[in-house]
Amino acid sequence: MTENNLSIFEKHESEVRSYVRGFPTVFHKAKGYKLWDLDNKEYIDFFSGAGALNYGHNDENMKKKMIEYIQEDGVTHSLDMASKAKGEFLEKFHEIILKPRNLDYKVMFPGPTGANTVESALKLARKVTGRTNIVSFTKGFHGMTIGALSVTGNAFKRAGAGMPLNNATSMPYDNFMDDTEESLKYIEKMLDNSGSGVDKPAAFILETVQGEGGLNAARMEWLQSIEKICRDRDILLIIDDIQAGVGRTGTFFSFEPAGIKPDIVCLSKSIGGYGTPLALTLIHPDFDKFAPGEHNGTFRGNNLAFVTATEALNYWKDDSLEKNVQEKSKRMEEFLNGLIKKYPNMKGSHRGRGFMQGIASEVDGFSDKVTEKCFEQGLIMETAGPDDEVFKLFPPITIDDEGLDKGLSIIEKAVEKVVSEKNLVTS
Amino acid sequence: MTENNLSIFEKHESEVRSYVRGFPTVFHKAKGYKLWDLDNKEYIDFFSGAGALNYGHNDENMKKKMIEYIQEDGVTHSLDMASKAKGEFLEKFHEIILKPRNLDYKVMFPGPTGANTVESALKLARKVTGRTNIVSFTKGFHGMTIGALSVTGNAFKRAGAGMPLNNATSMPYDNFMDDTEESLKYIEKMLDNSGSGVDKPAAFILETVQGEGGLNAARMEWLQSIEKICRDRDILLIIDDIQAGVGRTGTFFSFEPAGIKPDIVCLSKSIGGYGTPLALTLIHPDFDKFAPGEHNGTFRGNNLAFVTATEALNYWKDDSLEKNVQEKSKRMEEFLNGLIKKYPNMKGSHRGRGFMQGIASEVDGFSDKVTEKCFEQGLIMETAGPDDEVFKLFPPITIDDEGLDKGLSIIEKAVEKVVSEKNLVTS
Amino acid sequence: MTENNLSIFEKHESEVRSYVRGFPTVFHKAKGYKLWDLDNKEYIDFFSGAGALNYGHNDENMKKKMIEYIQEDGVTHSLDMASKAKGEFLEKFHEIILKPRNLDYKVMFPGPTGANTVESALKLARKVTGRTNIVSFTKGFHGMTIGALSVTGNAFKRAGAGMPLNNATSMPYDNFMDDTEESLKYIEKMLDNSGSGVDKPAAFILETVQGEGGLNAARMEWLQSIEKICRDRDILLIIDDIQAGVGRTGTFFSFEPAGIKPDIVCLSKSIGGYGTPLALTLIHPDFDKFAPGEHNGTFRGNNLAFVTATEALNYWKDDSLEKNVQEKSKRMEEFLNGLIKKYPNMKGSHRGRGFMQGIASEVDGFSDKVTEKCFEQGLIMETAGPDDEVFKLFPPITIDDEGLDKGLSIIEKAVEKVVSEKNLVTS
Amino acid sequence: MTENNLSIFEKHESEVRSYVRGFPTVFHKAKGYKLWDLDNKEYIDFFSGAGALNYGHNDENMKKKMIEYIQEDGVTHSLDMASKAKGEFLEKFHEIILKPRNLDYKVMFPGPTGANTVESALKLARKVTGRTNIVSFTKGFHGMTIGALSVTGNAFKRAGAGMPLNNATSMPYDNFMDDTEESLKYIEKMLDNSGSGVDKPAAFILETVQGEGGLNAARMEWLQSIEKICRDRDILLIIDDIQAGVGRTGTFFSFEPAGIKPDIVCLSKSIGGYGTPLALTLIHPDFDKFAPGEHNGTFRGNNLAFVTATEALNYWKDDSLEKNVQEKSKRMEEFLNGLIKKYPNMKGSHRGRGFMQGIASEVDGFSDKVTEKCFEQGLIMETAGPDDEVFKLFPPITIDDEGLDKGLSIIEKAVEKVVSEKNLVTS
Repeated sequence: MTENNLSIFEKHESEVRSYVRGFPTVFHKAKGYKLWDLDNKEYIDFFSGAGALNYGHNDENMKKKMIEYIQEDGVTHSLDMASKAKGEFLEKFHEIILKPRNLDYKVMFPGPTGANTVESALKLARKVTGRTNIVSFTKGFHGMTIGALSVTGNAFKRAGAGMPLNNATSMPYDNFMDDTEESLKYIEKMLDNSGSGVDKPAAFILETVQGEGGLNAARMEWLQSIEKICRDRDILLIIDDIQAGVGRTGTFFSFEPAGIKPDIVCLSKSIGGYGTPLALTLIHPDFDKFAPGEHNGTFRGNNLAFVTATEALNYWKDDSLEKNVQEKSKRMEEFLNGLIKKYPNMKGSHRGRGFMQGIASEVDGFSDKVTEKCFEQGLIMETAGPDDEVFKLFPPITIDDEGLDKGLSIIEKAVEKVVSEKNLVTS
Repeated sequence: MTENNLSIFEKHESEVRSYVRGFPTVFHKAKGYKLWDLDNKEYIDFFSGAGALNYGHNDENMKKKMIEYIQEDGVTHSLDMASKAKGEFLEKFHEIILKPRNLDYKVMFPGPTGANTVESALKLARKVTGRTNIVSFTKGFHGMTIGALSVTGNAFKRAGAGMPLNNATSMPYDNFMDDTEESLKYIEKMLDNSGSGVDKPAAFILETVQGEGGLNAARMEWLQSIEKICRDRDILLIIDDIQAGVGRTGTFFSFEPAGIKPDIVCLSKSIGGYGTPLALTLIHPDFDKFAPGEHNGTFRGNNLAFVTATEALNYWKDDSLEKNVQEKSKRMEEFLNGLIKKYPNMKGSHRGRGFMQGIASEVDGFSDKVTEKCFEQGLIMETAGPDDEVFKLFPPITIDDEGLDKGLSIIEKAVEKVVSEKNLVTS
Repeated sequence: MTENNLSIFEKHESEVRSYVRGFPTVFHKAKGYKLWDLDNKEYIDFFSGAGALNYGHNDENMKKKMIEYIQEDGVTHSLDMASKAKGEFLEKFHEIILKPRNLDYKVMFPGPTGANTVESALKLARKVTGRTNIVSFTKGFHGMTIGALSVTGNAFKRAGAGMPLNNATSMPYDNFMDDTEESLKYIEKMLDNSGSGVDKPAAFILETVQGEGGLNAARMEWLQSIEKICRDRDILLIIDDIQAGVGRTGTFFSFEPAGIKPDIVCLSKSIGGYGTPLALTLIHPDFDKFAPGEHNGTFRGNNLAFVTATEALNYWKDDSLEKNVQEKSKRMEEFLNGLIKKYPNMKGSHRGRGFMQGIASEVDGFSDKVTEKCFEQGLIMETAGPDDEVFKLFPPITIDDEGLDKGLSIIEKAVEKVVSEKNLVTS
Repeated sequence: MTENNLSIFEKHESEVRSYVRGFPTVFHKAKGYKLWDLDNKEYIDFFSGAGALNYGHNDENMKKKMIEYIQEDGVTHSLDMASKAKGEFLEKFHEIILKPRNLDYKVMFPGPTGANTVESALKLARKVTGRTNIVSFTKGFHGMTIGALSVTGNAFKRAGAGMPLNNATSMPYDNFMDDTEESLKYIEKMLDNSGSGVDKPAAFILETVQGEGGLNAARMEWLQSIEKICRDRDILLIIDDIQAGVGRTGTFFSFEPAGIKPDIVCLSKSIGGYGTPLALTLIHPDFDKFAPGEHNGTFRGNNLAFVTATEALNYWKDDSLEKNVQEKSKRMEEFLNGLIKKYPNMKGSHRGRGFMQGIASEVDGFSDKVTEKCFEQGLIMETAGPDDEVFKLFPPITIDDEGLDKGLSIIEKAVEKVVSEKNLVTS
C-alpha cells in the first residue's frame, strides 16, 4: 500500500469503522506527538490514541527495549504462565507505583483491553459481596462488552446491545445536576431509604474525569464523599482509571489528589506504554477472591507489552513528568479560558483537568467543525460528550513546549475560523 | 529478574493466576515449538498459547517484519484510523483468505481479544434480528465477559459472573447425547414447537471443535444440518473460530470441510500470527449494520499485530501448510488411538481433529497427572473439558517431525508412568 | 341487560377478550353442568370454567352455606387476619385432605389466582435455595404475570411480555420427544454435566397433566423419576395442580397415583368450590421460610371462598366422588378411542387422563371446527395445545350419566359433521 | 370453630401470615365500619381491608343484590365469556364513571387482583412501545408478582423475589427529596440527557397517593408535570389507582383533581364493592393492542363481583358521597394536625389526603405502639411506610360522624398513652 487512498477500507472494512471517517487519511509513521500519513503530511497528535499513547508514539527507550526483546527471542505470548518480562513488570510496578503510594493491591491481568478489566472488576465485586446491582454514573464510559456496557451511560452505545442492559443503577455524577450538593444527597437518599427501589449495590464504578462522557472532572471533595458513602455502607469502590490514569491528569493515578483508596482499580490504555495492549485490575487483598482461572483470557500475558510497560515506569521514578504535566495543564487551562472569553459566540465552557481538558460549546455542531478545521491544518483532536459537544485536548503527556504551542495555535485558528463563519456567529 | 523463582508472582499477582500453577517455572525465551525457562531448561510446546501460537513462537519472517516496522517508527497504535499496516492486512486477507474461499465478509476489528469479537457478534445478531435469545451449545466456550460468558457452558466459569446469566439457551452439541441423531431432533423440536418455551433466537453460536470444552469435534453432517436449521428459520449462524480457526484443524477456517458459510465468524488468537493481540469479526455484508462507532475499543488498531498477521498470511499462499497439518494430524490420531489400545486402564477415548486432538480418560485425575509428568519431562500440555478429563495435544501447526516425535514420545512415557502407578491401575 | 346482544362488550371491553369470541352469547344462569343464555338456550358445560368449576355451577350445598354466611353478615374480606371462615377451612382441609394423604404442608394464601400461587412458589424456591434458575417444561402453562410467564412455554403468550423472559430453563416434558426415555436422559445430562450451560435450578415446576398445553398426561413413572432427579440433586419440586388438581384427574391431587410428595403445591381454580377466587400454596414445613408479609396480596382472605371451599371438602369425606370420576373417565376414554377409530380422517390421537381428556387432530383447524359445531348444538368445549389442535372434554366431575351422555353425543355428531365436510375429508 | 383461639392458624398456616400477628383475634362478623370477633368484641375499622372495603363491610344494597343473584343461580364464574352481570357492569361503569369524566377507556379484566392489573399494564406498555424499561417511583407499591415487584420500592418485599429485579428505573417521587423542584428536574434530566444511562422507558407507573409507601400524596402540579413529561416524550402514563382510587381520596379516580388523563389506569380493591375480588385495567383505545387471549386469567369473570360492583356504582350517581368524603377528610386533617401540635414529642408530621391520612412519627416504633394501643381499645388501624413510621387512618368512605368520632377519640387516647410512656417522651 503506497497510495494515500481509503478505498481498501471502504471496500473491506465494516461500516462500524469510525475515526477513519473523521480523520480520512492513511497514517504511516509516528514519533512522539507527531504522525505522518502516506503523503508524508505531518500531524500533531492531540488525541493520543484516546489515552493509549500518553507517552507519545514510539518512545525511544521503550522501542529499544522492545526490539532487543524481540531480537533475543524473548517469549512473546505466555498466557498467565510466569515469564521474566512479566516478573520484572510486577516487581517494578510494585516498587515504583504501588509502594510509594502506600497501596498494596494484588495485580490481575484480565486480558489486554479496558473492557476486560472492567468486566473482571464487576464480576469480582458481585462475587465477593453476593449482590448483583452496580451503581454507575451518568455519562460514564466503561466499554462495549455487555457487562461494561451495562454501566455505560451513552444511549447510542447502549442501543448496540440489542437487548435490555440490567443489574446496574445510574446515579448523577458530580456535575450532572446544577446544584453541586444534589448528586451526593440524592445518592445517599437512594441508598439509605429502604423504599427507594434501588437494590443495595455490590460496588460503585466511576471515572474521576469522564473522558468519553465529555471531560467532566469530579471535584476532589465529591470523590472523597463517594468513597465515604461506599465505606459507610460496605460497598466496594471501583475506579476506572483506564483513560484518566497513567499520568493523564498529572499524577499516576487520577484519584491521588483526592487521597482516596479504591478497592479495585481498572487500568489499561497507556499502562502498556507503547500502545501495546495491556490491562491490569488492581485488587485490594481482602477482595482477591477469584479462584484460579475463574476469569481468564488469551492475551493476558502479552510480553511485548510487559517490556514496554516496565520501561515506561521509569517516567515515574521521580516527579519530573508529573511536574511537567501539571505546569502544562495550567497553560492549557489558561489558553482555553482565554478562548472562551475571546469568542463568546461559541458559548463555551471549560471542561476537565490535567491533560484531558477541552471546551464544551453550546453551539450545535461547533466542536465537530473545530476538530474538522484542525485536521485540515494538521492537528488530530476528537470530540467527546453525549452530543459531541466538547472538543478535547488530549496531547501526549510528554509533549514539549514547541508541540504544545503549535497545537494550541492551530486550535485557536480553527476556533476563530468556525466562529467567523456567518451561520455560527448568529446561532 | 535472573533467578527462576515464583515468589514475585506469589507476592504481587492475584490468586486468579492459573497456568503458572500447572507450569511452575519462569519462562524466558522461545522459538518455534520450544520454550526455555530461566534455568535454560528446554520445553517442547504442545500448548501453543491455547491456540494463539499456531505458527509457533517468534516466527523468523514475522519477527523480521515487526522489527523493521518498529525500527522505522511505523505507527504502533491507531485505533480505527486508516494505517498502511492495516490497509495491507485488509487487502491481503481478502486476497489470500476470503476471495479463494468465495467469502465476501466485511471485516470488523472489535478489540483484540476473543471476548471482544464474540461480544460484537452477539450484539450485532441481536441488533439486526430484533431478537434477544441466543442458542449456545453444551460445553461451548466463548469468553469471560458477561455477554460471552452467558453463552459459555462451564459452570465454574459461569459462577464467576456473580449474577444470573440470561438471554441464552443451551442446546446439546453434536456428541453430547449418546444417540447421534438426538441433538438435531431436539434442537428442531425446541425451535419449531410453539409451546417449547424457547424463544426464537437471533443466532446460534458454536465452535466446530470445542477446545476448552474437551476437544469435541462436531461431525461435518451435523454442522451442515445446523446451518440448514438456521437458514430455514432465518436465524443467524455465528461460528466462533477463535481456537479452531487459523489452520488449527488443517484448513484456514475450521468449517471449510463442512462447506458451510456462517453469517458471522469470530477470529482471534492466532490471527495475529506472533502472539500479538488481534481479533476480527467477519460479517456477511447483509448484516453489516452497526452504525459508525456503535461498537468500539481502544486496541482495535494494533499495527504490530497487523504487520505480523499480514506476514503470517503467506503461509496460506499455497496448500503446503494445510497438507503438513493434515498429514501430521493423522500421525497424532494413530498415536493416540495406539495409546488407548495399549493402556486400556486409562479408559481413554479419542477426541478432536486436526491439531487439536487428545484423550479423554474416565479415570479421575488421570489427565492432570499425565500433563504433570509431561511438564517434568519438558513438555507443556494442558487439560480441557468440564472436569479436566482430556489431555490436549496442541502443538504449533508448523512443528516439524522431530518436534512432533519428541513430544509424542514424552507423552507416551508419561501415560505409561501414570498408568503404572498402582492407584490408577486399580481405579 | 335483557337482550342477548354482544354490542356492549364490543364497545366497552378490551380487544384482549377471548372466550366470548368462541362462545358468542350472553350467559345468564347456570346450574350443575348446565348454562343458559339470555335467550334461555341451554348449554351443556364441558368446559367447567377451564377447571375452576369442577363441582359444576352453583352447587346447592355451597350455595346454601354462602347465602347463610352473607345473610348473617359474616366478614367478607379479611386480608390475612384470622376469621372463623378461614379457620374452619384450614382445619377441615388439614383433616380431610392433608392428613389422610400423610402430607403435612403449611398453607399459604398468596392471593386468589393461579398466577399468585405460582409466583409465590417460584419466589420461595429461589429464596430458600439461593439459586435463580427454574426448570420448566415444554408446553407448560403457569400464568400471565412475568414470573409465571417465564416458566410458561407458549410463544404467543410469552410475546405478550414485551421483554425477554429469563431465569428459567425449558426442558422436554414426558411425551415431548418421540422416545419415552429421551426426556429424562436429557434432563439428567443437562443437570449433571458441569459444562451444560444450564445453571443448577432452585426448583422444577410442572403440571402432571398439561391442560392448556394440549392435555399431555405424564406417565406415573416419569413423575417418579422427576421427583427422584430433584431429590438426588437437592432441587425443589413444585407441582402446579391448579388445573389438574381438586379431583379433575380422579384423585384430589393429580400426583397421588404417582406416590410423589412435592415440596410445594400450587392450588387454585376449583379449590374455592363455587367459582369463588381462592388459591393456596402448600409448602413443606422445611421450606416455610417467607418472613411475615414478605409476600402478600389484598384478596388472600376471601371469606366467601373459604365458606364454599370448606363445604366443597365434604365431597372428599369418602371415595364416592373419586370412584365416580374414575369410572366416567374410562367411559370418556372408550368414547374418544372409538371416535378416533371410527373417523380416521381426523387423524386423531387420544390425550390426557381423568376428566381432562381430548383428541389431538393433525388436521389443521379440525378441533376448532368441532368446538364450533358443538357450541351450535349447545355444548361448550374449548381447544388446547400450542396450535389449538386438541379439543378438550372438561365436564364437571360431578356430572351425572345423563349429562355425560348428552355431551358425548353432541361431540360425536360434531365430529361426524366436520369430518363429512368435503374440505376436511380430503385434507 | 367457636373459640377465639389462634392455634389453628399457628399450626396450619404459613409463617408468611402477617396481619393476624398485629390483630391477634378471630373475626367473625362485620357491618359498615364495624367488625366483631368470636368473643363478640366490637372493633371500629380504620383499615378497610387495606382499601378493599371503601364502602365498609357488607353494604346492605350490595348484599341484597348478591343474595338475589346467588339465589336465582346467576352464573357465578364465566371467565371472559359474556354474562348478563358483566354486561351490566360494563354499561353502568361507562355511563356513571367514564362518560361524565370524559374518559373513553376500553376495559380489560386481567384477573381479580391488583398484581394482575399492574402486570397487564406493564406488559401492554412494553408491547405497544417496543421498549422494556419502566420508570417507577421511590416508595411505590404495586404488588408481589415479579413484574409488579420490579416496580415496587420496598427493599424487604423486593428481597422476597430471590433474584435480581430488572427492567425498571426508580425515580424520586414528589416529596422524596427535600427540594420540591428537585424530583422533576432530576427526572427530566435523566430522560433527556443521552448519556444518563437511563434507557427510554415504555411507561411511568405511579400512585397519586402512595398508600403502602407511607401516605405520600403527590401535589397536583407535580402530577401535571409528570403527565407533561410523559406526553412530551411519547411515554405512556400508568396510574395505579388500586388503593387511592374508587373514592378513597374524595373523587372516584384519585387523579381527577389534577386534571390528568393517564393512558392506562389500574383498578382493583374496592372496585368490587363488597370485598369481592375484581380488577380492571382501563386502556386508552389507542393502546388497546393485546391480541385476543394474549393476557388471560381464570377469575377475570367473577360475576358475584360484577353484581356488587354494579350496585356500588350507585354511590357515584350524584356527588353526595364525594362531598361527604371531602368534608370528613378536612375533619381528619384538622384532627391530625391538632394531635401533632398537642404532642410534639411524637415528632409527627401530617401525611396523605382524603381518606388516606396519617401521621409519620420520627420516634422509632411510635406508630406501631399507637396501632397496638388502638387495637386494645377496639380500633383496627395499620402502619405504613418503609419503616412502619406512619399510622394510617383508613376508615370506610361511607363512615358516619359517630363512627369517625369514636375512631378519632380512640386514636387520640392511644397517642396520649404512648407519648406519656417514659421511654418515648425522652426519645
